[in-house]
Amino acid sequence: MRPYVHGYDNIESGRLRDQADTLADLLHHDSVYPPGAHILEAGCGVGAQTIHLAGRNPHAVITSVDISADSLAQAQSAIDARGIRNVTFQQADLLHLPFETQRFDHVFVCFVLEHLPDPAQALRALLPMLKPGGTITAIEGDHGSAFFHPESEAAHKAIRALVELQRSAGGNADIGRELYPLLVHAGFDAVHVSPRMVYVDGSRPELLDGFTRRTFTAMIEGVREPAIKAGLMAPEDFDAGVRDLYRTAGADGVFCYTFFKGTGLKPGSSGAAPERSRP
Amino acid sequence: MRPYVHGYDNIESGRLRDQADTLADLLHHDSVYPPGAHILEAGCGVGAQTIHLAGRNPHAVITSVDISADSLAQAQSAIDARGIRNVTFQQADLLHLPFETQRFDHVFVCFVLEHLPDPAQALRALLPMLKPGGTITAIEGDHGSAFFHPESEAAHKAIRALVELQRSAGGNADIGRELYPLLVHAGFDAVHVSPRMVYVDGSRPELLDGFTRRTFTAMIEGVREPAIKAGLMAPEDFDAGVRDLYRTAGADGVFCYTFFKGTGLKPGSSGAAPERSRP
Repeated sequence: MRPYVHGYDNIESGRLRDQADTLADLLHHDSVYPPGAHILEAGCGVGAQTIHLAGRNPHAVITSVDISADSLAQAQSAIDARGIRNVTFQQADLLHLPFETQRFDHVFVCFVLEHLPDPAQALRALLPMLKPGGTITAIEGDHGSAFFHPESEAAHKAIRALVELQRSAGGNADIGRELYPLLVHAGFDAVHVSPRMVYVDGSRPELLDGFTRRTFTAMIEGVREPAIKAGLMAPEDFDAGVRDLYRTAGADGVFCYTFFKGTGLKPGSSGAAPERSRP
Repeated sequence: MRPYVHGYDNIESGRLRDQADTLADLLHHDSVYPPGAHILEAGCGVGAQTIHLAGRNPHAVITSVDISADSLAQAQSAIDARGIRNVTFQQADLLHLPFETQRFDHVFVCFVLEHLPDPAQALRALLPMLKPGGTITAIEGDHGSAFFHPESEAAHKAIRALVELQRSAGGNADIGRELYPLLVHAGFDAVHVSPRMVYVDGSRPELLDGFTRRTFTAMIEGVREPAIKAGLMAPEDFDAGVRDLYRTAGADGVFCYTFFKGTGLKPGSSGAAPERSRP
């Protein structure tokens, strides 16, 4: 089975950009750093979060790295299309970053840890990149946080199929809830995690469409073939699950999903001004 | 099997009061009504929420009803002990309230709908009690919203055992997510639901103790005997589930639970001033 990884797939790229637009305020309203700050975005993928990070920090100096040259090319196009000029892209492995230590004031890592076999190792590799007193911000979803009305066993099974595919590719789609212990054990101080729930009901049509249908359910629907090929679900069961997820976006439906945003400080006396960047 | 119902049990009463104190700010910081408002608290139980409602609205006129004379006696003691004087208790059935129509400016119903076989019927019975333009506020938990780290199948099964017991007693412990469609279908206008997540990690010791251990896990532990008697779980499995729930309150643990607060307006021109009471 081809490992399923968000963002390394043309079909996925459009979905990830839709998701980023819908969720930008929820996740990034407080992703704000002091002017002149040097920010490392670790694992920028196709630039879905880069455009929000750069848009909210026009006077910061942003270095965005990813291991995939294809993704970086798409990310470059995305920022060029928006006239953003304060981002430099560089191909690099998170675990072997080609930067001198203590180069950055802030590290930003969004929807990346979920794909790594050892997220704790990645966080430990990011710590030396920061100046003492610099901050890390990590954002992750958690598919186990999803619940909805009407209730559906098939829908939960379809979600678990995606979680299993991501696990078999070395990732963890339930990682959001673990940000606090991960950041603490990696050696960050003053760790603070805030949950960001997307709550969708019939009074919020932009989220019914932008999140429940086009982001979450489309993501589940996107793993139909690999889930069936891997024997995780029978086609008719998977299809029933997807149908039930779409039903939660009806007038009487409700859908809940929680993202987590964690921040921490690199121990040592502060050379940065971290206050504005901490939610 | 004796139906399990929160609040009609001496052992439960202390737990419910602890829960109310820990959660009061999260749930009630915006349970604020204009001075002089006439408020009906429908289903006050032992007064766990009454003390917060009255404490935040010292110049409102509160009528609190419950079907149980025993609970009402405890509720009266609770408000007397705090010197609260603006609450009148009255024994009544929610479905047959002994009040003239349009008597109240606001209706407040907290942790009650979860116990009713037909919550929609109860909401329809409350609507005539309100003046046109008056508001309803409904607050409920949702046990299906619980997720945690470390993950545990046994813990989820123990939670589902409580949900099954409550279902067999005619209730619905997953009702929080349904507040929006319930309020809309009962005939309220401008329905707005806000989720209130309790997020607990090692940096929040007051919640580790006050919520994860003494509120949620204690509640699950409290149904050990009926869950085993009903054949829902073997004793060793139930005990493993409870042990795993306590483990989520360890230094590396994380626990998430979501309450829902819904508000709505009775259609018609306003005689009340609902702005301050709507979150």
